[in-house]
Amino acid sequence: MALILTFLGKGGTGRTTIAVATAKRFAQQGKRVLLASQDTSPALSLFLGETVGSQPTEVAPNLKATYLKSAQLLEQSWEQLKSLEAQYVRTPFFKNVYGQELGVLPGMDSALALNAIREYDASGAYDVIVYDGPSSQETLRMLGMPEILSWYVRRFRQVFLESDFWKAISPFAQPVSSAVLSVDLSADNFSQPTNQVNNILDQGKEAVADPNRVVAYLVTTADDIAIATARYLWGSAQQVCLTVGGVILNQANLSDSITESFDPLKVHAVPEIPAQDWQILTQALPDLSAIAKTAPRSISVDVAKRQVSLFLPSFDKKQIKLTQYGPEVTIEAGDQRRNIFLPDPLRGKPVTGAKFQNNYLIISF
Amino acid sequence: MALILTFLGKGGTGRTTIAVATAKRFAQQGKRVLLASQDTSPALSLFLGETVGSQPTEVAPNLKATYLKSAQLLEQSWEQLKSLEAQYVRTPFFKNVYGQELGVLPGMDSALALNAIREYDASGAYDVIVYDGPSSQETLRMLGMPEILSWYVRRFRQVFLESDFWKAISPFAQPVSSAVLSVDLSADNFSQPTNQVNNILDQGKEAVADPNRVVAYLVTTADDIAIATARYLWGSAQQVCLTVGGVILNQANLSDSITESFDPLKVHAVPEIPAQDWQILTQALPDLSAIAKTAPRSISVDVAKRQVSLFLPSFDKKQIKLTQYGPEVTIEAGDQRRNIFLPDPLRGKPVTGAKFQNNYLIISF
Repeated sequence: MALILTFLGKGGTGRTTIAVATAKRFAQQGKRVLLASQDTSPALSLFLGETVGSQPTEVAPNLKATYLKSAQLLEQSWEQLKSLEAQYVRTPFFKNVYGQELGVLPGMDSALALNAIREYDASGAYDVIVYDGPSSQETLRMLGMPEILSWYVRRFRQVFLESDFWKAISPFAQPVSSAVLSVDLSADNFSQPTNQVNNILDQGKEAVADPNRVVAYLVTTADDIAIATARYLWGSAQQVCLTVGGVILNQANLSDSITESFDPLKVHAVPEIPAQDWQILTQALPDLSAIAKTAPRSISVDVAKRQVSLFLPSFDKKQIKLTQYGPEVTIEAGDQRRNIFLPDPLRGKPVTGAKFQNNYLIISF
Repeated sequence: MALILTFLGKGGTGRTTIAVATAKRFAQQGKRVLLASQDTSPALSLFLGETVGSQPTEVAPNLKATYLKSAQLLEQSWEQLKSLEAQYVRTPFFKNVYGQELGVLPGMDSALALNAIREYDASGAYDVIVYDGPSSQETLRMLGMPEILSWYVRRFRQVFLESDFWKAISPFAQPVSSAVLSVDLSADNFSQPTNQVNNILDQGKEAVADPNRVVAYLVTTADDIAIATARYLWGSAQQVCLTVGGVILNQANLSDSITESFDPLKVHAVPEIPAQDWQILTQALPDLSAIAKTAPRSISVDVAKRQVSLFLPSFDKKQIKLTQYGPEVTIEAGDQRRNIFLPDPLRGKPVTGAKFQNNYLIISF
C-alpha cells in the first residue's frame, strides 16, 4: 500500500512545483514514487523537462510520472464493463458501443482518476503516489466520492426497498427478468458485482480517512487571497474526512499572523528559488510522511458521552448548517454535505444540542 | 439572451482578476452584468471587497455577483425533480429523500452550474454573464456537456432499440408498467419530459457553438508554461465547439514570439497593475464582445467537396486520433473525444482521407 499525497491551494501558488519537488525528494530517499497528474496540459512535461505520457514512465531514478488521461482511461474501463456484462448477461447490450467513441462527461475525470490511483496503489509497484489535480475543489470532490457515493447507495437502497414501487413490482420483476434476460434479480445472483462495488467504496472511504494512507498539504503564498483560499480548503477537506497534514508557505518567510491562521497545523516556509532549482527546493521541504500523523482527525465519536466532535477549521458558526431531515445527521459547510454515519447506540437518535468550540462542532444526542 | 463569457488559462495567470475587470467594464458601459463564480472559496468576495452569496447581489451599478454553490443548487434541482415525479408517477419514489441531505458527487458541480447559467440567461435579467470556473479543464467539460450528452442519448437510444433486450421486453414492458405504475412507456406519454431534456441539450449545443452567445478568452502571462497551457486549452476548446475569441496577455508586454504562438488570434497585452486598481485594468481591456466575431470556427462542412474541416490549433498530427468504430467519425485530441454529427449526404460514409494543414484537420469522405 502506497502513501498517497496531494496538495490543495489557490491556482498559481505553486501546487504543481511542490508536488514535483515532493516526488523527487521521496525518490531520492529510495522510495518508489509515482507522480500522477490529472492536468493534461503540457505543464507537467515542461516542469519535468521530460515527455510524460499516459503510462508511467521513468523520469528519474525511482521516479515515474504519468498523465491521467480521461479519454483513454474511459476506453479501458468500458472494455472492463463489457467483459463484466458478457459474464452476467446472456444478450449483452453494451458490446455494440466501442470505447474508442466515448466522449468524456463532467465527473468522469474524477471517477476515472480515483480508480486509476486505486489500481496503481493495489499494484504494489509504488511506495508513494503524488497526485496533482486540476483544481483543489475537484480533488476534494474526487476524494469525497467513496464516502458520498456509498451514502447514496445506502440511502436509495433503503428508500427503494420501502417503496410501493418495489413492493408492487417484486412479484413480477423476478420471473420476467429470469425468463427474458436470464438474469436473476434476487440478492444472491447480483451479489458478486454489487459486493465488488461496495467493497471498493468501503476501502476507498477507509483509505481517505486514514492519515497513513492519504494526506493532503495546503500550499499558499503570503498573499491574503491565497491564504484565505487555503484556509477554506482546509475546512472543506474535513467534510470529506481527508487529513490535512500541514502547510507549505511558498516563496515567503513565516510571519506570526500566518502561523496563527493555520494553528494547530505546522507551517513550513519554502523560500523563493531560482527557476526550477529542484535541488534547493527538495532540500527545503519537510518530511511530509512524518508530520501528517499529528494532524487533527476530522471526526471523533464518544459513545459514553453521546457526543460527536467534528473538526471544522476556518468556518464560523454561520457557515455551518446542521440538519436531521433524513435518517442521519447532515452537516453542510464548504459547499459539501456530509451525512454522519453514527455507531449503533447513537443511530436514529435526535440531536439534543450543538456547540462550536475551538474549530470543533460538538453534537450531542 | 445574454452574451456568456469565460476565461481559460493556467491557474495563477489572473483569470479571476480579468473576469472581474471584464464584468466591471461591461457594467460601466451600461450593460446588466452577472459575475458567476464556481470557485466557492472566499477569493471572489475578497477580489470584489464585497460579500458575495449564493443569490445574485449588486456589488456595483449594473453589476451583480454570485457564487454557484453546488450543495444549494442540488437541493433546488432535487425539489424540481420531485415535483416532476409527482406529475408523472402515481407512487412517487424520490419524495422520501430530502434535498437537504444530498451530498455533491463529481460532475454535479458542472451540471448544476451549466443549468444555473442557462436559467440566469433565460431570465432576461442580464446582457452579459461572466463565468469564472474552478479550473479551465472543468470549464471545458461543462461547456462540452450538451454536445457529448446528446451524443450519448443518440447512440444509446439506437443501441437500445436495436438490442435483443428491447425486442424481448417491449411486449411485456408496456402492459406491466401501465398496470403497476400507471405510466405508459410508449413514445407519446413520456415525450414531454424527454423532449424537454432534448430541447435543453440542443439549445445548449447551439449556444456553445455560437460566438454571439458563448465565447472564451485565453489568459496567459509571458511564462513559457502558462503560454503552453493556454495554447493547449485553445485546441481543447475546439473539441467542445467553443469559440476562443482572443488572448489576454497579463502583466507583460507583447513579443513577436507570443503573437506567433496564438496566430490568427489577436493578443491584447494588459500591463502589470498596482494591486486591484480596477480603473486602469478595465480601461486596458479590449472590447471582448466585438473581437470574438472574427475568430475561427471549430468546424465547417463542404458537402459538395465531401470535406469536413476541423480547426485544431496547438496540436500536431501525432496528438490527434481519427477513428470510425461507431456510426460517426470520432476525433480524439486534448483529452476529449468528439463525434462528428454529419449532414445527411455524408452520414455513414467511410473516411477516404485526412490531412493536417495550417491548424486544420481536413477529412474527406
